Amino acid sequence: MERFYNAPDRVVDDILHAAAATADLRVAEPESGLRILIREDWDRAKHGREQVAVLSGGGAGHEPAHAGFIGQGMLTGVISGSLFASPSVEPILAAIREVCGEAGCLLVVKNYTGDRLNFGLAAERARGEGLNVEMVIVSDDVAIHQAPQPRGIAGTLLVHKLAGYLAGQGTALGDIQQQARALCEQMGSLGMALKPAAQPGQQAASRSPELGLGIHNETGTREVAPEIADDAMRLVLEPLCEALATISGASPNTAWVAMLNNLGSCSTQEMGVLAESLLRQLGEGSVSHLIGPAPLMTSLDMHGFSVTLVPGTPELLAALRAPTSAPAWPGVRGVRKAPTFMPNTGQGHDALIDDAPQNAETTAVLWRVIETLRDAREALDALDASSGDGDAGASMQSGADSLARALDANHLTTTALAPLFTGIGQLLARDMGGSSGVLLSILFTAAGSALERGDAPAEALAAGVNKMQEYGGARAGDRTMLDALLPSIAALQAGNTLADAAQAARTGADNTASLTTANAGRSAYVPESALKGIVDPGAEAVARVFKTLARG
Amino acid sequence: MERFYNAPDRVVDDILHAAAATADLRVAEPESGLRILIREDWDRAKHGREQVAVLSGGGAGHEPAHAGFIGQGMLTGVISGSLFASPSVEPILAAIREVCGEAGCLLVVKNYTGDRLNFGLAAERARGEGLNVEMVIVSDDVAIHQAPQPRGIAGTLLVHKLAGYLAGQGTALGDIQQQARALCEQMGSLGMALKPAAQPGQQAASRSPELGLGIHNETGTREVAPEIADDAMRLVLEPLCEALATISGASPNTAWVAMLNNLGSCSTQEMGVLAESLLRQLGEGSVSHLIGPAPLMTSLDMHGFSVTLVPGTPELLAALRAPTSAPAWPGVRGVRKAPTFMPNTGQGHDALIDDAPQNAETTAVLWRVIETLRDAREALDALDASSGDGDAGASMQSGADSLARALDANHLTTTALAPLFTGIGQLLARDMGGSSGVLLSILFTAAGSALERGDAPAEALAAGVNKMQEYGGARAGDRTMLDALLPSIAALQAGNTLADAAQAARTGADNTASLTTANAGRSAYVPESALKGIVDPGAEAVARVFKTLARG
Repeated sequence: MERFYNAPDRVVDDILHAAAATADLRVAEPESGLRILIREDWDRAKHGREQVAVLSGGGAGHEPAHAGFIGQGMLTGVISGSLFASPSVEPILAAIREVCGEAGCLLVVKNYTGDRLNFGLAAERARGEGLNVEMVIVSDDVAIHQAPQPRGIAGTLLVHKLAGYLAGQGTALGDIQQQARALCEQMGSLGMALKPAAQPGQQAASRSPELGLGIHNETGTREVAPEIADDAMRLVLEPLCEALATISGASPNTAWVAMLNNLGSCSTQEMGVLAESLLRQLGEGSVSHLIGPAPLMTSLDMHGFSVTLVPGTPELLAALRAPTSAPAWPGVRGVRKAPTFMPNTGQGHDALIDDAPQNAETTAVLWRVIETLRDAREALDALDASSGDGDAGASMQSGADSLARALDANHLTTTALAPLFTGIGQLLARDMGGSSGVLLSILFTAAGSALERGDAPAEALAAGVNKMQEYGGARAGDRTMLDALLPSIAALQAGNTLADAAQAARTGADNTASLTTANAGRSAYVPESALKGIVDPGAEAVARVFKTLARG
Repeated sequence: MERFYNAPDRVVDDILHAAAATADLRVAEPESGLRILIREDWDRAKHGREQVAVLSGGGAGHEPAHAGFIGQGMLTGVISGSLFASPSVEPILAAIREVCGEAGCLLVVKNYTGDRLNFGLAAERARGEGLNVEMVIVSDDVAIHQAPQPRGIAGTLLVHKLAGYLAGQGTALGDIQQQARALCEQMGSLGMALKPAAQPGQQAASRSPELGLGIHNETGTREVAPEIADDAMRLVLEPLCEALATISGASPNTAWVAMLNNLGSCSTQEMGVLAESLLRQLGEGSVSHLIGPAPLMTSLDMHGFSVTLVPGTPELLAALRAPTSAPAWPGVRGVRKAPTFMPNTGQGHDALIDDAPQNAETTAVLWRVIETLRDAREALDALDASSGDGDAGASMQSGADSLARALDANHLTTTALAPLFTGIGQLLARDMGGSSGVLLSILFTAAGSALERGDAPAEALAAGVNKMQEYGGARAGDRTMLDALLPSIAALQAGNTLADAAQAARTGADNTASLTTANAGRSAYVPESALKGIVDPGAEAVARVFKTLARG
């Protein structure tokens, strides 16, 4: 299975069904076999008396065009053909009859022979019935130099938006047609793709990257070989800007509206990179507004994009900015250099100070803890080799070394527990590294805050170990340092001595040797057999530290 | 070039730059090296006094998450890491300091160790500074049965929306945290992919389709082999619904909110097919609301999708429905069976009637035209063989045959030109086929309408040929039937006789033999050498018909 389709001949109806189930649309009875989708609230007698109905459509395979652009302020309805094939005259005429009131109906048609002829004949038939129908044929593709019949591609959506906006304002049919045609004269589009589209049930043709290919997989005007996204964007922008340089009203100072269209299967990340490239290459101030990047006028799963440019006149911008209920319209956004701020990366309440006051006894205990951890390095690394990457001892030693440097430099207050804990938290985050460094930093930082709030030391440690569990995600029995920390801190909370706590830590650590399943921490991905009889190195370190503290 | 990227290490900054240039954001000074994006209008002293700030973030590569969800009613700001890697503590803490006012700050974190630890430590540091910070850890992935630490995936966006909505309402931090946690308990998500993601600059690994893979390309829980989109959707929905069946409050009558997420490079068409499949398989009424389909929480260019389900409580729906200025939020849409209408496919003012009145002379002329076209078949086919597909004569004959059948059945009025032309237009559209059938139908239909409006016959024909040009796109000199039609109708308009018109048609037709470039019509794609000396078959047919008319 290459793509998420059911039977190839069901693709169009599946898509339209989903669109109709979640948008404010009514649809032609499925048994009619006609694919017509109309704004649910549109009443040709009521709305159609004062507002021009705007219809569009064409072959399918370009979704969200066109059904996604039905809504107040945009299209009144859509007639869909099958994949890449124009609808026939019958559904188009039926759609005109459904929506066209006294104010008339505008057909917005992409410049392809099938679409022109079928929509054209439907329009003539409707006129024969006395309906007031006009057409705008969109031909925004600049791929073929001086093409007598440039194709209609993504720029069609701008015509939908302009015409829908004007219709909503009660503008007369002739005026809308005139303004829509003027827009068509002003805009240009060009696409490129790394890979062409594949019809459902078929493989994509093996073709080189191409510039100027059509939205029905028509071969591009030339093969290209971009190496990076910037190349691809330049290949599109250069001929596009050249083609547009000749249009009336464009000057070097023209502020353009750009539309960046995902032709199918580009990722969000690729479209973001292309958007940045577009803005950078056209230059600041040159593009005043951006529509997209988004899949707007696609060609099935074509791996490519198109750019549409049009001068951003106040009239056009008013139309593009106006709200619409059409679900696929991405809005138009002003382009500007984002304002910046200097992030506050200061230490905040820095617990590491100069000439930190020392309590000789506490400082001495800390040095003994440092020695304990340094001495334990080899033993801890050996335990870790069985269940992890063998660096638990090294990691603990780097934490101990950091503490030693801070004591040597007299940066760590030892006269009060709150700044001491907070300071240790800072040191471990900065110097210890690894998950265990962050976890221990969380313990000491949270415990320091708890002490500041007035908690007793045992309660503060409990608060710290709580946070460690919350963020670390491990629980008792998961073969982590928690298996030594939790019982020892519980002992302190119960009013027991440090010696009792040390004994509890030792028992907890030893018990980890019999825990053969681990749900978190380093052992979670290790087979049971490798864990049997091995004490968790984190828990062992905790037990050794508590033993030292109890001696102090 | 496989994908539209520039240097791989620029991808994240390129994307964020484009996002910031077109959204109402301010960003950390680039020289700081920190990737922080904040709602431009957010003032921690002003807004932060009464509204909780909501921050989220994590590794990049999930765009539009998370920066696309910054806006009023959603996120206050975002901290982005590099691709698939958590941001470190420093930018998270700086972001908290930037946004957190008296009302406090909620961190919404996906359940990955790196995110939990870095956001967790930043939160503890911020608390140490006296800031009121809480965290919600999202773990909506149901891929691993009874996983102790389910991953946070697309469901995270629902938490963003709920928390952002509540914050905008002035809800207190603790209440928001509680409601967000309750939402996390209620929802589940599951993804599948046909192809994993490729890191920029790397090839995608060759892996089978997988179910339950992570958004960082983590291997799925099992390989699967869906044959069509329905299979793929069923593979996701069955375990997802099973996992959710146990949650409190869900009953067989629960109306679910579904979110359909494009994990990367699915086309719009594939997502439409999947949406239809989702709604059909869960059954009408079971899904009351749909979010998407859209790329929401992606995994670079992973070719896959995820579904998130949550019971649609009134409180949640109020939050999801509330407006937001976040550019990537796709809205939530009610699901219902779309209302239908029976399209009006009647003939309208049917010009084909029973017992149509006949003018013997006109009817006789028509029969002679029919004979002329039948006789010309072989000659026209031969001319067409040089420049087209050799069926011009057959096509003209099918039009003539249609006319003959209508005359035989007495369906075509010949006593007045208006209904005659309109009727011929109907016949040709229905029976002649091909572009030339539609074009001639347009000519006769438009001419019939013009006669109805009171135009003289020559003017009506001119109006018809005008429409033929407008919709057909060809002009004089393009080697089409226009080259005979235009001069002959011009002759009639100038008051000349039918014989003069016939002569003009003949001259025009003969001239096409010297036209070796064609811009429209059948000859547009044929090399010049193949056209030299060959009269265009359409023009030839016109000349022969006019000759017959002149004789009549």
